[in-house]
Amino acid sequence: MNSPSIIIDEQGLRDGLQTLTRILPLEMKLDFIQRLMNAGLRRIQVTSFVHPKWVPAMADAAQLCASLPQSGEVEFSALVLNNKGVERAAQAGIRLVAASISASDTHSKKNANKTLLEARQEFKEMVSLARQHQLSIRGGIQCVFGCRYEGAIDEAVVYDITKHHLDCGVEEIAFADSTGMGNPAQMKRMLPRLLELCGTVPVSLHLHNTENKGYANLVAALDCGVRQFDTAFGGLGGCPFIQGATGNIATEDTVHLLHQMGYTTGIDMEAVAAISMDMQQWLGAPLPGLLYTLLQNKEVRLN
Amino acid sequence: MNSPSIIIDEQGLRDGLQTLTRILPLEMKLDFIQRLMNAGLRRIQVTSFVHPKWVPAMADAAQLCASLPQSGEVEFSALVLNNKGVERAAQAGIRLVAASISASDTHSKKNANKTLLEARQEFKEMVSLARQHQLSIRGGIQCVFGCRYEGAIDEAVVYDITKHHLDCGVEEIAFADSTGMGNPAQMKRMLPRLLELCGTVPVSLHLHNTENKGYANLVAALDCGVRQFDTAFGGLGGCPFIQGATGNIATEDTVHLLHQMGYTTGIDMEAVAAISMDMQQWLGAPLPGLLYTLLQNKEVRLN
Repeated sequence: MNSPSIIIDEQGLRDGLQTLTRILPLEMKLDFIQRLMNAGLRRIQVTSFVHPKWVPAMADAAQLCASLPQSGEVEFSALVLNNKGVERAAQAGIRLVAASISASDTHSKKNANKTLLEARQEFKEMVSLARQHQLSIRGGIQCVFGCRYEGAIDEAVVYDITKHHLDCGVEEIAFADSTGMGNPAQMKRMLPRLLELCGTVPVSLHLHNTENKGYANLVAALDCGVRQFDTAFGGLGGCPFIQGATGNIATEDTVHLLHQMGYTTGIDMEAVAAISMDMQQWLGAPLPGLLYTLLQNKEVRLN
Repeated sequence: MNSPSIIIDEQGLRDGLQTLTRILPLEMKLDFIQRLMNAGLRRIQVTSFVHPKWVPAMADAAQLCASLPQSGEVEFSALVLNNKGVERAAQAGIRLVAASISASDTHSKKNANKTLLEARQEFKEMVSLARQHQLSIRGGIQCVFGCRYEGAIDEAVVYDITKHHLDCGVEEIAFADSTGMGNPAQMKRMLPRLLELCGTVPVSLHLHNTENKGYANLVAALDCGVRQFDTAFGGLGGCPFIQGATGNIATEDTVHLLHQMGYTTGIDMEAVAAISMDMQQWLGAPLPGLLYTLLQNKEVRLN
């Protein structure tokens, strides 16, 4: 068997921090970013250009982007929610922005105060604006595999938004199981179709482990040929709507599973686990990832 | 697609309690057992006939067995570790005993103070003794997919013990990923061979989620045709050797995943989650399962 290479997009500092009540200081963010780079991460989503009133943890977005380590090897990205975010990201000097719309009309209205139709129109404008600023843009779709408000999502809507994203000319598409409601059978049904639609446009999968299916969904997606995943160190993240909901699949747990299955990532799992350990200490509460906890026992043996 | 039926063997009251420092009172055990039955569980491992000096939580094993609800529908089992345990189980009136040996010589020596060869010989005697008492016996193999002391386990040893168990005449074989070190690729490599060896003898898989791979391994095993799994409500359990290691795959999380994938279990997932919630309250600490936490939000919508 060859060792297919998997791309990991680290999102702990964006998806992970936005739901915390405590604000991680800028110097700590920069230190974590440097350590993630040292651990072998080559794609890191570092912040979100969102109004500080909504997400105070991201108030330092511009300053953070201006302070990023210079590295030709690492691609930094920022989430943007609207045209203003695209403008701010461009001014801050980030080269890749991520923008997404929800496949659930109810979620879109409650979360972004836009109907699906309005969100699609605004997305198109954002892509156009990003182009003007020579930014690359990653188009995301949220709630692809289920919505806490609507339950199951009509798959036809997902395919339709995918085509819309492609028509807009995004460089990459990320499909998000934002709620962790997806299951492996669903992955195997929907992903081949989505991969086919996307053709040569790279596809990424953003998985949450809210219902303990995140890693099973990861393996199902690997079987379908997905080769890029969003993760967060320590499994940070989580849905702000749901108390106790756990976050993204953990970077170190994902990397360990991938390596065991014969995939390569270029990532030092133990170095990522050490970052999660420090994050737990700063936060004063355990994170959802399991590997970093296990590795606190220095003598533990892994396969 | 048909809806294949999956058998769930609930082990929370045995594998779950043995590592806790607090002792669950007999009445609470019996109440949990009744509620598990009401939730649709049809196989429940209720206790372990082990010396109370080693596992004080199981000191009430005989009394518990004598107090079990009468039900022709539910099969109760008890773990036994040696001939004395078989005798005690027979006296207590349990009809199914589970006995296992480790695939790791080092684990066997440290955990059971027996070499692999001694364990095999003793296992044979236990099967013979169980026969004399007209007990059914389930033969287990521990550390099938990895050992914290030895690391990878020689697969040939696992196949060899399997043949030994079959030669002894066990009614069923359970393969345990006791350490949670297994991965889906390994499942897909080893399980077809193990299923073939076992022929018409039922095969069960005992999975731990220690490294966040438990549910991915479950799905891989389903793909291989395994139709019986050990689980523990709330994901109780865990390896006594490793601080912070999480336990068995959770009954409710497993059932939810199975139902979503089109399998039937006959189990009311929410009723099991309610038991886990009460267990958490008694314990005063969160359990590793995720569904019961999510379901605390009464309005949460599941697919």
